[in-house]
Amino acid sequence: MSNRKVALGIDFGTESGRALLVDVTDGHEVATAVFDYENGVIDEALPVEGEPVRLDPEWALQDPEDYLKALKVAVPAALKAGGVDPDDVIGIGIDFTSCTMLPTTADGTPLCMLPEFRRTPNAWVKLWKHHASQPEADRINEAARARQEPWLARYGGKISSEWFFSKVLQILGESPEVYEAADVLIEGGDWLVWQLVGEQHRNASTTGYKAMWSRQDGFPSPDFFEALDPRMRNVIAEKMTEDIYPIGAKAGGLTERAAGWMGLRPGIPVAVANMDAHVSVPGSSVTGPGRMVMIMGTSTCHILLGESEQPVEGICGVVHEGVVPGMYGYEAGQSGVGDIFGWFVDHAVPPEYHEDADRRGISVHKLLEEKAAGQKPGEHGLLALDWWNGNRSVLVDGDLSGLLIGATLSTRAEDIYRALIEATAYGTRVIIEAFEENGIAINEIVASGGLPERNPMMMQIYADVTGRAFKLAGSNLAGALGSAMFGAVVAGAAQGGYDTIQEAALKMTRLKGRVYEPVADNQAVYDLLYAEYLRLYNLFGRGKNQVMKTLKAIRNKVRE
Amino acid sequence: MSNRKVALGIDFGTESGRALLVDVTDGHEVATAVFDYENGVIDEALPVEGEPVRLDPEWALQDPEDYLKALKVAVPAALKAGGVDPDDVIGIGIDFTSCTMLPTTADGTPLCMLPEFRRTPNAWVKLWKHHASQPEADRINEAARARQEPWLARYGGKISSEWFFSKVLQILGESPEVYEAADVLIEGGDWLVWQLVGEQHRNASTTGYKAMWSRQDGFPSPDFFEALDPRMRNVIAEKMTEDIYPIGAKAGGLTERAAGWMGLRPGIPVAVANMDAHVSVPGSSVTGPGRMVMIMGTSTCHILLGESEQPVEGICGVVHEGVVPGMYGYEAGQSGVGDIFGWFVDHAVPPEYHEDADRRGISVHKLLEEKAAGQKPGEHGLLALDWWNGNRSVLVDGDLSGLLIGATLSTRAEDIYRALIEATAYGTRVIIEAFEENGIAINEIVASGGLPERNPMMMQIYADVTGRAFKLAGSNLAGALGSAMFGAVVAGAAQGGYDTIQEAALKMTRLKGRVYEPVADNQAVYDLLYAEYLRLYNLFGRGKNQVMKTLKAIRNKVRE
Repeated sequence: MSNRKVALGIDFGTESGRALLVDVTDGHEVATAVFDYENGVIDEALPVEGEPVRLDPEWALQDPEDYLKALKVAVPAALKAGGVDPDDVIGIGIDFTSCTMLPTTADGTPLCMLPEFRRTPNAWVKLWKHHASQPEADRINEAARARQEPWLARYGGKISSEWFFSKVLQILGESPEVYEAADVLIEGGDWLVWQLVGEQHRNASTTGYKAMWSRQDGFPSPDFFEALDPRMRNVIAEKMTEDIYPIGAKAGGLTERAAGWMGLRPGIPVAVANMDAHVSVPGSSVTGPGRMVMIMGTSTCHILLGESEQPVEGICGVVHEGVVPGMYGYEAGQSGVGDIFGWFVDHAVPPEYHEDADRRGISVHKLLEEKAAGQKPGEHGLLALDWWNGNRSVLVDGDLSGLLIGATLSTRAEDIYRALIEATAYGTRVIIEAFEENGIAINEIVASGGLPERNPMMMQIYADVTGRAFKLAGSNLAGALGSAMFGAVVAGAAQGGYDTIQEAALKMTRLKGRVYEPVADNQAVYDLLYAEYLRLYNLFGRGKNQVMKTLKAIRNKVRE
Repeated sequence: MSNRKVALGIDFGTESGRALLVDVTDGHEVATAVFDYENGVIDEALPVEGEPVRLDPEWALQDPEDYLKALKVAVPAALKAGGVDPDDVIGIGIDFTSCTMLPTTADGTPLCMLPEFRRTPNAWVKLWKHHASQPEADRINEAARARQEPWLARYGGKISSEWFFSKVLQILGESPEVYEAADVLIEGGDWLVWQLVGEQHRNASTTGYKAMWSRQDGFPSPDFFEALDPRMRNVIAEKMTEDIYPIGAKAGGLTERAAGWMGLRPGIPVAVANMDAHVSVPGSSVTGPGRMVMIMGTSTCHILLGESEQPVEGICGVVHEGVVPGMYGYEAGQSGVGDIFGWFVDHAVPPEYHEDADRRGISVHKLLEEKAAGQKPGEHGLLALDWWNGNRSVLVDGDLSGLLIGATLSTRAEDIYRALIEATAYGTRVIIEAFEENGIAINEIVASGGLPERNPMMMQIYADVTGRAFKLAGSNLAGALGSAMFGAVVAGAAQGGYDTIQEAALKMTRLKGRVYEPVADNQAVYDLLYAEYLRLYNLFGRGKNQVMKTLKAIRNKVRE
């Protein structure tokens, strides 16, 4: 072993798995490599031989084989690219999309790998964005409300079709033989750690945020599950485990077999699995209260640490040790952000803009930003509600829809583009204020993810609208970096790593130099506009005017 | 003189003048010719030699010389094209945009033709869409409200920047020397008739709808004008006339000079001038109550005849004998219709649609119509308020703006296009209901103008939304045809014409064969959607939620 100490983070995303090797001393990113999943997101037909097995709309599956291939391809490639001696790798952390779950046998074999279940969609991995479990989510919410289940408050009063038991209930209802054959129902991240260390060590984060578990109260009761379906009464005892490990805990040492896949030495300590968004928090240098991390992409995930558990309206969840050890991790979200800007560029921007952008070799987003950046706040005269994809926080209502007001014959594409960006900033301000109204301070915001780096105008608008300084995570791979940091933590100081995630963050992360500070003149105008946004938010979002729901109800009826 | 009897209608539009020769016996359109105004709409700089004289935004002027050229070019061209013997022309009618007005000397010379005023913008013809007189309109409305002027109710409680005295007040305020030098202030149509017959014969229509005159009460009082500006106290006595002739009256016989311009014989009877939209009413075969005419183009003008005068909220005006003799003519309007669809196509439709339309050699409008026509009402899940250009009737509020609600990531251009068309149909229904609530029945609607012919989907939507049968005017030149009909009326039956406009309409007009009948299933869904439209209409249009005005106020402030 040389003197160099390297931690390995592996980030399992929706389309690919990425390995990142990080110098533990200073956080230098030594090398990275990506493996694009061969079967990617499976949403049309199963990747099987013979007669095609088609999937209904709203389905989204994955192939567990792809995850193993990512280990076998991306890790050796990164080692090679960085010229890293495998002996220098002192610890491994992984993060995964969530809730992405699968049924397996007792030895961890995914049921979809067994010949008898190969053609059964419910035997495959259900990806986080599998939305076909909405009826099951509705049943869970109904039953929980009827029984006044105490855990419902932790999730802002409503659970999602994306979550663990919505998916389990779909398996049971549609493919009881799969449910029956499943010795284990498990999150993808936990399954992967199991493959690495040879035994199950489930993590508190995904279990807490997506499977209604808490350290204090455990899972929902057998009575509750029985109310959903009598066959499900003992689902925890039969197919899950109540041994749940906090984030930052060690799951075990790398097995011979797994070491062989990746070209590493056996025995390297492996951390319990983490969620891709959540692991970005320490990866963005945040390990304590007062700083919110926003992971901004097609949607935005807001994560904040607190020292106690407070009820906050409409958050996605609060989990003890769900993000870093010793803290409560609060999660909120905006279900449409980059997605809305992308929709606009694809479906509402006239040809001249596309031609102009093409000619100049820039994206249409960049062109619109250029045209809109010179405007003063309020100059376009528009206001939007950013609900093109519903509202996650704080209203938790997928039936809400987008609104644009103030259009005139002089309105141009850049005006609407800017108004949409502003609307998402107002949406963030509502979330910040919901936290602060419950005594959870937010002094500063660190943005990570793909959007912030590319959109300086957007970042300035967010600072002006929220009245907070916005900083940018130093790494563009904050997820994989966070995982590597947990690898360093499970190695421990004695092995050249760190004993706490706080120490790891201090040494291994930094913020970018540029800070977006709110500009007082802009803030003054945005305060006026935000007051109008809030009025519309409450009017259309809280039941006073039901037009959005009526429109969806009429639409659904005429489409029948 | 042969046995053929032909009437000449001349339609003075915004961009051109059109001559139409019509066989009086059966309404057959024998020939037509157009003259495009050389100076068109003057909105950047005066068409003068030397140092340019630039115009402020919102200005829109015209050159009276263009009107005379239209006579000299289009009429001979139509005679020639139709092989019409000038001796067969028995009567002449003209219609004009309004309120388009100018200052002249006592002999009718436009002041802008005098060298000393050639470079003074206020000496030129102010076109109907000259909007720079908004501050003057505000002053007139304020003074009228303060003095509780009885005439205000006839105009739905508010007069417009486009109207006669708003423009006069601007001349007086900005160019008192022009006001001083003007012996006459006159509508363009009345000025043109003066040129044809050699003396002033002002018409009741433009005077009634745009200059606050009524048969019963005359003009506003000298005291009122004095309240606006002491110099204006005697504006009526000094520069106008109280001799006002009903629509259908004869202004006189064609002078030698004017006959020479057009290649016609002197003495042909000429009718008093008419408004371009209003003359479409008999031109669309409507000469009595119960049938509303909608002249649909960039905006829509709704005209309805009644046997008595009733107050109706938010109409543009009601004038006795303003449309046909013996009847009250009610006018209402929607300030953005084709304009909104045009805005959408120009500024919010993505390149694929333009490419597809190009490839197929059809307009983008037609392509969007094709894509949207298969939808059921309510299927797109959208609702709009059609206020991109403010709201004329019934709210009379230019500060309102457009709203779109219900957008999702699945929303496509054809969905929004259809929602915009539907919004204008809901706006029409509000106007119909305002009339009916005041006891003025509307059983059927006749559409004329450019839009209805080109947009069958739109017509069906209008029928379904309003629950009324929509018919189409038989002529695509209903304005020029209506003018020719009034030419036949001033000729009279003794000369081969008609004694009343009703007889003329019976013989000279027809409707197109196609009738758009409401479909019950569609009506049922549109009733639900209209209820939502009305809720938003009242919410945002009647002061309960002021966001549209706040947005404009903020915009105006930051633009300062």
